[in-house]
Amino acid sequence: MTTTEHAPISPEQQAVEDRLVRNVVSSFDECGNPRLQQVMVSLVRHLHAFIRDVRLTDDEWSAAIDFLTRAGHITDDVRQEFILLSDVLGASMQTININNTAYENATEATVFGPFFVDGSPEINNGEDMSFGAPGEPCWVEGTVTDTTGNPLAGAKIEVWEADEDGMYDVQYDVGKRAARAHLFSEPDGSYRFWGLTPTPYPIPDDGPVGQMLTAVGRSPLRAAHLHFMVTHDGHRTLVTHIFPTGDPIGKKDTVFGVKDSLIKDFATQPAGTPTPDGRDVDGTWSRVRFDIVLAPEGA
Amino acid sequence: MTTTEHAPISPEQQAVEDRLVRNVVSSFDECGNPRLQQVMVSLVRHLHAFIRDVRLTDDEWSAAIDFLTRAGHITDDVRQEFILLSDVLGASMQTININNTAYENATEATVFGPFFVDGSPEINNGEDMSFGAPGEPCWVEGTVTDTTGNPLAGAKIEVWEADEDGMYDVQYDVGKRAARAHLFSEPDGSYRFWGLTPTPYPIPDDGPVGQMLTAVGRSPLRAAHLHFMVTHDGHRTLVTHIFPTGDPIGKKDTVFGVKDSLIKDFATQPAGTPTPDGRDVDGTWSRVRFDIVLAPEGA
Repeated sequence: MTTTEHAPISPEQQAVEDRLVRNVVSSFDECGNPRLQQVMVSLVRHLHAFIRDVRLTDDEWSAAIDFLTRAGHITDDVRQEFILLSDVLGASMQTININNTAYENATEATVFGPFFVDGSPEINNGEDMSFGAPGEPCWVEGTVTDTTGNPLAGAKIEVWEADEDGMYDVQYDVGKRAARAHLFSEPDGSYRFWGLTPTPYPIPDDGPVGQMLTAVGRSPLRAAHLHFMVTHDGHRTLVTHIFPTGDPIGKKDTVFGVKDSLIKDFATQPAGTPTPDGRDVDGTWSRVRFDIVLAPEGA
Repeated sequence: MTTTEHAPISPEQQAVEDRLVRNVVSSFDECGNPRLQQVMVSLVRHLHAFIRDVRLTDDEWSAAIDFLTRAGHITDDVRQEFILLSDVLGASMQTININNTAYENATEATVFGPFFVDGSPEINNGEDMSFGAPGEPCWVEGTVTDTTGNPLAGAKIEVWEADEDGMYDVQYDVGKRAARAHLFSEPDGSYRFWGLTPTPYPIPDDGPVGQMLTAVGRSPLRAAHLHFMVTHDGHRTLVTHIFPTGDPIGKKDTVFGVKDSLIKDFATQPAGTPTPDGRDVDGTWSRVRFDIVLAPEGA
């Protein structure tokens, strides 16, 4: 197949296509919910513009129906192919961008991902959130402040990540909790904990989304990352990750979650390097600093 | 909820959103199939334009994921919710428009629908395609010609329709064949058969698409119609319906299949009116003329 350079479209044909768009748009005239109407009308306009721009063929339409059908059939309580689809098309990240607009020096948000769970274990500052998950130990520390630099005490910091095999706890067992915890910032806004140095891993790629990525020559790999969700009264909740400098995946992150401001130096420490809290570590470990700045609520 | 009149978007925020679109578009740079790349890039551009235009909220994004998930779960071998979705958004009809461009006086195409099946019974001209399906008898006649008026002999005419209860044969039983047949045009291009006067019926509306229609104040009813698929060597295959004049659904057809040129007078005949072929009919019957004009192949 080659790129379709379609023939010029006659005014009569344009009129037929335009008339249909108008008819579909006006079918929402009786909608009693103005916001729903606005969303549906915009969806219809953009959907039709797409179909008309590419001059979608019957076979391509059928392939789209088949793709959605297979995505629906592989989706269950633990596998969500439509979120993966939204992620790999950048739709999730764009929604995050829109709902977390750039605000002064506030830390940028990124995708939430499907692996957050409520009810993580609480740890104290300096404790270990890995709970035995395999991976290189990583000392994480920083502060939580507002955009003027005032420390925010008692901010709730949820952290979660994959182990060195690229697996989250809940992928082994829905009830398992490891490499996942929450802690609270100190009165001076500081926080610190032991976690794992993040490693890249593929999104689940044995379904239609994985097949699509293969067909278009894209990798299913996510850039290595450590998840944060930070909440504090009077401030906008921050959902983000940090990404290690030098990750070969980096900007090719298959869900487009990487932002320059979120790339941090996870500095590898040679075996035997003394740890900040005197903990004994066998072999190498890493350390990273992540200073978190929260926007005001409603920003 | 009211229509969102969102705040002006700062240049910095625009830049963040634009950059993401560029990143997603360039993720398809390595695609070895130029047509697939073209389709995916256009899809991404329009999808992001939609999300940005409406400033999609997190909750709306979640509702969309949930909608698609439920559509996937209700879809099986006989129920196709994604085709229904495409139909009620006019996407099916627009794809038909694009692949059956207006050509001189050729008969216009409309949606195929989910109820065509291969292997319909063959009938001779003048015979009955209802095979006992309930409904008012309808005498259908016309000609098949090319766009210059030359008769086309031996054109294969597939016809199918719902019964007076709004049900297709295969909805009762996948193996049942009634109100469905094929015949061939005569040497002078003419054809004629007994069928049923079409009646309006709802698309399957007990799933997420039906719920969406309810939420936006739309009817699930299709305008009454009789399906045709006409094939003849050297001519473009025509998939279309005819619609009775005066149907109260008419242009409010929930799948946007109605075109002015396809609305025909199904003239009701009082009980006792002699039939064209001398057949005895109890009660009223109707008659309609549908002259079919095929575009040349590749038109």
